[in-house]
Amino acid sequence: MMRIDVLSLFPGMFQGVFNESILGKAAEKGAVSYHITDFRDYTTNKHRKVDDYPFGGGAGMVLMPQPIFDAVGAVRTEADFSPRIILTSPQGKPFRQRDAEELSREKQLIFICGHYEGFDERIPQHLVTDEYSIGDFVMTGGELAAMAMIDSIVRLLPGVLGNDTSAVTDSFSDGLLEHPHYTRPADFRGMNVPDVLVSGNHEKITEWRHKESLRRTFLRRPDLLANRSLSGKEAEWLSEFRQKNKE
Amino acid sequence: MMRIDVLSLFPGMFQGVFNESILGKAAEKGAVSYHITDFRDYTTNKHRKVDDYPFGGGAGMVLMPQPIFDAVGAVRTEADFSPRIILTSPQGKPFRQRDAEELSREKQLIFICGHYEGFDERIPQHLVTDEYSIGDFVMTGGELAAMAMIDSIVRLLPGVLGNDTSAVTDSFSDGLLEHPHYTRPADFRGMNVPDVLVSGNHEKITEWRHKESLRRTFLRRPDLLANRSLSGKEAEWLSEFRQKNKE
Repeated sequence: MMRIDVLSLFPGMFQGVFNESILGKAAEKGAVSYHITDFRDYTTNKHRKVDDYPFGGGAGMVLMPQPIFDAVGAVRTEADFSPRIILTSPQGKPFRQRDAEELSREKQLIFICGHYEGFDERIPQHLVTDEYSIGDFVMTGGELAAMAMIDSIVRLLPGVLGNDTSAVTDSFSDGLLEHPHYTRPADFRGMNVPDVLVSGNHEKITEWRHKESLRRTFLRRPDLLANRSLSGKEAEWLSEFRQKNKE
Repeated sequence: MMRIDVLSLFPGMFQGVFNESILGKAAEKGAVSYHITDFRDYTTNKHRKVDDYPFGGGAGMVLMPQPIFDAVGAVRTEADFSPRIILTSPQGKPFRQRDAEELSREKQLIFICGHYEGFDERIPQHLVTDEYSIGDFVMTGGELAAMAMIDSIVRLLPGVLGNDTSAVTDSFSDGLLEHPHYTRPADFRGMNVPDVLVSGNHEKITEWRHKESLRRTFLRRPDLLANRSLSGKEAEWLSEFRQKNKE
């Protein structure tokens, strides 16, 4: 079973998320256990202060190293190995699907959620093993980034998703965005499903999905195609899309 | 006051997040109001079904258009203008800080959270105004992506962050990652704060921060520098970093 520790000043933020949906079911099934620690409980100063003014001046408060170092020490002693210690921040490396896959093979993950203006740099420098960002936007704290990462990791654990093929056919698994989906009714208020999907011709359907997957990636995320090798068919489709784009 | 509607099958996921931390305080201050709608309440079939098998076959279930179209219709009628209708999905355009800034000027935002294998394509095609992805990784549903976006938007609303300069000096606001922060103690278990920060020389501190901001961006996110124009000083520093990288 994977053990996930979260160090946060706002433990209440996690209750709804870890109890509901697939994350909650994963814990019920015994695939993962969640442990939330309020690192304010580890302060050694009498006012239970976790932050202080930045050296060198400037706006905002900075999280002090002591409570976080000690809280990590406390949740670590329960394990006889070195867990991954993850900090979520806008300065981290971008978190991608392959990182979720790699982290899903660990026994314990410890997430540190920053807040306020930031954290003392000695935390990432001397304590943390991985600093990740989920995107180029700023949030009020690291909690939602940690939850997003945890969700993407936990769904990959064995037995969590009911259907084993689901995790494999997702977006990014083959370097392309996922193709469009349609379900009943075929005619919804005058908006119709593409004919090919109701044709019963499975070869044509597979080809249509592959092509739409590539088209969507070309139109929305050409950056994903830059590092991907193309089959002959894909190269043909791509020049068709480029031609159409010029018209 | 901004009104934020969220359409989700897991309304319980939002309680902890919208009640705690800065998101909760923003609502208390009257800067924003949150309205969660379970779109299962808008199903017209007797089993309250929200999903069905995909046309053309394949694993997983697909969210049907009817409950979502009707739930959006219901929360829209309360407004006399056209709100932004946002779908979170891995196929969307990447959500960035400038999108948070743009959306923070709207009167109403409606977030639709997908689940299961995906949603009927007629939803993004005919109902939604913006389809966003928060990153190249797959989650079990759109709820955490919506919460992350909402957090980044709400913190920009007037009066939400105590310190007005905070939002401006963040990462991404000037196209660079934020510089490192340090706070007390200057010597923490043998790990020390850089001398310049305790020098009292404000000009030197400002320069050090600017340089470290650029260094960090160069080392971790060179992609951010590709589209940014550099000052003379920055160009000088950058060639120094490149030189050092070669050694």
